[in-house]
Amino acid sequence: MKRIRTSALATAAGLALASNAIAQAPAATPSVPEALAPAKVSLLERPQPNIDTLADDDYGRLARRGHELATRTFAHIGPEVKDKTKRYAGNNLSCTSCHQESATKPFAIPWVGVTSTFPQYRGREDALSTVEERVNGCMERSMNGRALPLDSPEMKAFVTYIHFLSRGIPVGAEIEGSATKAVKVPNRRADLAAGQAVFQAQCQVCHGENGEGRRVGVAGDAQGYIFPPLWGPDTFNNGAGMNRILTAVRFIKHNMPQGVNYQSPVLSDDEAFDVAGYILSKARPVKANLEKDFPARWNKPIDAAFPPYVDGAPADQHKYGPFPPLAEKAREMAAKHAESLKEGKAQPAAR
Amino acid sequence: MKRIRTSALATAAGLALASNAIAQAPAATPSVPEALAPAKVSLLERPQPNIDTLADDDYGRLARRGHELATRTFAHIGPEVKDKTKRYAGNNLSCTSCHQESATKPFAIPWVGVTSTFPQYRGREDALSTVEERVNGCMERSMNGRALPLDSPEMKAFVTYIHFLSRGIPVGAEIEGSATKAVKVPNRRADLAAGQAVFQAQCQVCHGENGEGRRVGVAGDAQGYIFPPLWGPDTFNNGAGMNRILTAVRFIKHNMPQGVNYQSPVLSDDEAFDVAGYILSKARPVKANLEKDFPARWNKPIDAAFPPYVDGAPADQHKYGPFPPLAEKAREMAAKHAESLKEGKAQPAAR
Repeated sequence: MKRIRTSALATAAGLALASNAIAQAPAATPSVPEALAPAKVSLLERPQPNIDTLADDDYGRLARRGHELATRTFAHIGPEVKDKTKRYAGNNLSCTSCHQESATKPFAIPWVGVTSTFPQYRGREDALSTVEERVNGCMERSMNGRALPLDSPEMKAFVTYIHFLSRGIPVGAEIEGSATKAVKVPNRRADLAAGQAVFQAQCQVCHGENGEGRRVGVAGDAQGYIFPPLWGPDTFNNGAGMNRILTAVRFIKHNMPQGVNYQSPVLSDDEAFDVAGYILSKARPVKANLEKDFPARWNKPIDAAFPPYVDGAPADQHKYGPFPPLAEKAREMAAKHAESLKEGKAQPAAR
Repeated sequence: MKRIRTSALATAAGLALASNAIAQAPAATPSVPEALAPAKVSLLERPQPNIDTLADDDYGRLARRGHELATRTFAHIGPEVKDKTKRYAGNNLSCTSCHQESATKPFAIPWVGVTSTFPQYRGREDALSTVEERVNGCMERSMNGRALPLDSPEMKAFVTYIHFLSRGIPVGAEIEGSATKAVKVPNRRADLAAGQAVFQAQCQVCHGENGEGRRVGVAGDAQGYIFPPLWGPDTFNNGAGMNRILTAVRFIKHNMPQGVNYQSPVLSDDEAFDVAGYILSKARPVKANLEKDFPARWNKPIDAAFPPYVDGAPADQHKYGPFPPLAEKAREMAAKHAESLKEGKAQPAAR
């Protein structure tokens, strides 16, 4: 029985989720002997893997298929493909609408190293998730669709492409450049009018006046978008990570407008925060059963803007801020949870 | 189109399977930029991962569950467990009957690094296999049972334990100490009488006069064996890798009798070859549909002792040798296959 230690680690993981506006805490990692301790790997100065270097063998073909599915998702498993059984995604985005540069770009939620870091505890399920489950998390939320069968050729292609992207990264490594990069979120509610102005100045030229994106061809042709829609019926649903403003602001600041990376932001923290609020204020597909997300309520992210709200703060604050007071409450709840774990009054966070 | 290169790689993979009596060829690896080239890792002087070092968090608990399933398979998913829905294994072996020392021992088919090396081309399916598919290969053959559902808690536990064992090993690495270690197989048929003498002198004390193993308790108690049965109804079936004499001889030479490792063999190559032949000459469970294994016939291992035999050599020779002439034929077939690939007359090996 090592419940005390557990609770500390679980708490750290919970805080990483809950306070990502404040600081990017490292993922909780189990202790291992020194010689086997997980390496630290940085994606920031590492060459990007390129599938063109792969031979035309079985591995290479499946990795390429995964790359194709990631970059042209709409054409293979989108809602407009001819074979109805293959309509897994519910919108015409591609994986790489968010996971930029073929899912290799640092701080654009890269897949590089995902083979090394999964299975991984996920607060959304309060359980360990495999790579496949994580892919399906996106399928059901960011892609507003349904889960890929675990034994489908598409899932195998995704897993193989992710494996290829992860080559060279030690299993269990801590990875710099993964996920998104922290920003200093202002201690105020997002200003939606200011956000609209940012949108009109910086985003609208590509994403359209009504956030509708720009089609390659016409609706129904399964050819997707040159620039993806940000709201409306054909985009990520309200259960997606990108629907959380603190994730969106981090992503936007370091990846938008097109061409921006973590070293060359264009928007200020305030502008990114406001435009994220504006985008997320718009209507989008609604995911059923969101109340089942984050079953361990004490580690529900403070910007998960759907009920139940267990900290007494109003829905509007969870959606638009101000967040520092919520982060403070989350820290208190996590500490309380850790305390009751110590006293044996609560179950550890994860099943 | 890089068919020529493919064929060369596929050929190398095929030969590694076909000629493992002769030399342990490295697995075919796709080319990658120098900076991302797969590392080489040796398990031989590396500390063995130990789950006792893991915290009691979600990851630690699931890795421990995987360890428990691996070491006491019979007690959780064996044919005698109370919950009939959990009777996935058809015999009362444990995974660690072969994968010694909690699947960490070099050259005893360790799981260390498996997260790094799968998905991997497998000749048996002539396709890329995921970790999960590889686990199920064992479930259906070595464990003479049925596949674990991909979304079962047991599969997740196995995958997590394998991930834990692989910590620190770069994805895509070449691993020294994986699988089994090559031996110099004599250029003759296995001598079953000599093998019986070896068995009686070296193996029988633990495995029993009739290879029946030694039970912990009594049949029906799901407590498995202290020493596993080697033939008869409660052991691996004829579709298992261990039913191939060239795999068995490598395993036996470097791991048997108990206490032996690759540095301290007790049996000579001749003794290991003969006793492997003797053990595999006995009756064991029969797997249906073995003719579907190795659908790319040109890379069927020369010691896969079930039809079809495509090289014209008799079944007895595929079971007991002599093998060097078969290895020579396999090389010719692989070269011919590579040639027809070049000329565009054949499909690449793998789907």
